[in-house]
Amino acid sequence: MKKGDTFSHEFIVSEEIHRGFIELFKDRSPLHIDDSFAVSKGFKGKVMHGNILNGFMSFFIAECLPYENVIIHSQQINYSKPVYMNDQLNLVASIEEIHEAVNAVEFRFYYNNQNNVKVAKGRFQIGLLK
Amino acid sequence: MKKGDTFSHEFIVSEEIHRGFIELFKDRSPLHIDDSFAVSKGFKGKVMHGNILNGFMSFFIAECLPYENVIIHSQQINYSKPVYMNDQLNLVASIEEIHEAVNAVEFRFYYNNQNNVKVAKGRFQIGLLK
Repeated sequence: MKKGDTFSHEFIVSEEIHRGFIELFKDRSPLHIDDSFAVSKGFKGKVMHGNILNGFMSFFIAECLPYENVIIHSQQINYSKPVYMNDQLNLVASIEEIHEAVNAVEFRFYYNNQNNVKVAKGRFQIGLLK
Repeated sequence: MKKGDTFSHEFIVSEEIHRGFIELFKDRSPLHIDDSFAVSKGFKGKVMHGNILNGFMSFFIAECLPYENVIIHSQQINYSKPVYMNDQLNLVASIEEIHEAVNAVEFRFYYNNQNNVKVAKGRFQIGLLK
């Protein structure tokens, strides 16, 4: 692995994911469950919870990177555009820095939706378990 | 609300939350599901997914802050110590800055476990929906 290496995975913010997230974490804000409320605030429909994207990161880091056993050190995310039900999100992550002395790797990432709009971006650092 | 105002909530990383997170996001890394693997890597038992703590943030921001309708702009978290099954986490968040011109509020937060060990800390910014 080297700086610049890039990995990606597509996620769908399905009704099942949305419902499961609400059942698990109990965030029932009107913005996230009530289309007409969300429209009254200027959105196209109910806005998906940002932390669904953080849940996707968990899968991505565990299953879509070429490291066998890792632990997340830190994560940062900026939500720039709303995500709606059934959006198809392409998560693209690139290696920004490799810290060999401490077995850690830093990535930058972004999520694009099906219209090629960047809806979120950020960084994360993982540690490689020896 | 003013700078320094502080809010808190206790979360339990229950077996139900752990199982639900895995069902939803499919992160089945051995570190997170296999006690003996985790012990072989120097942990006391299987380590809970960091993004469970981000899911808790979603509830906290929606339900435990004195704002009616908000949207998350950004989040940052550092995981400093492992979280184990059934840990009781106290999330404490304080207002760091209020940006009135853009209706945004920045917080710092940390999670302490039942032994008063800080397991994670970070920042988030929310926007107040008019």
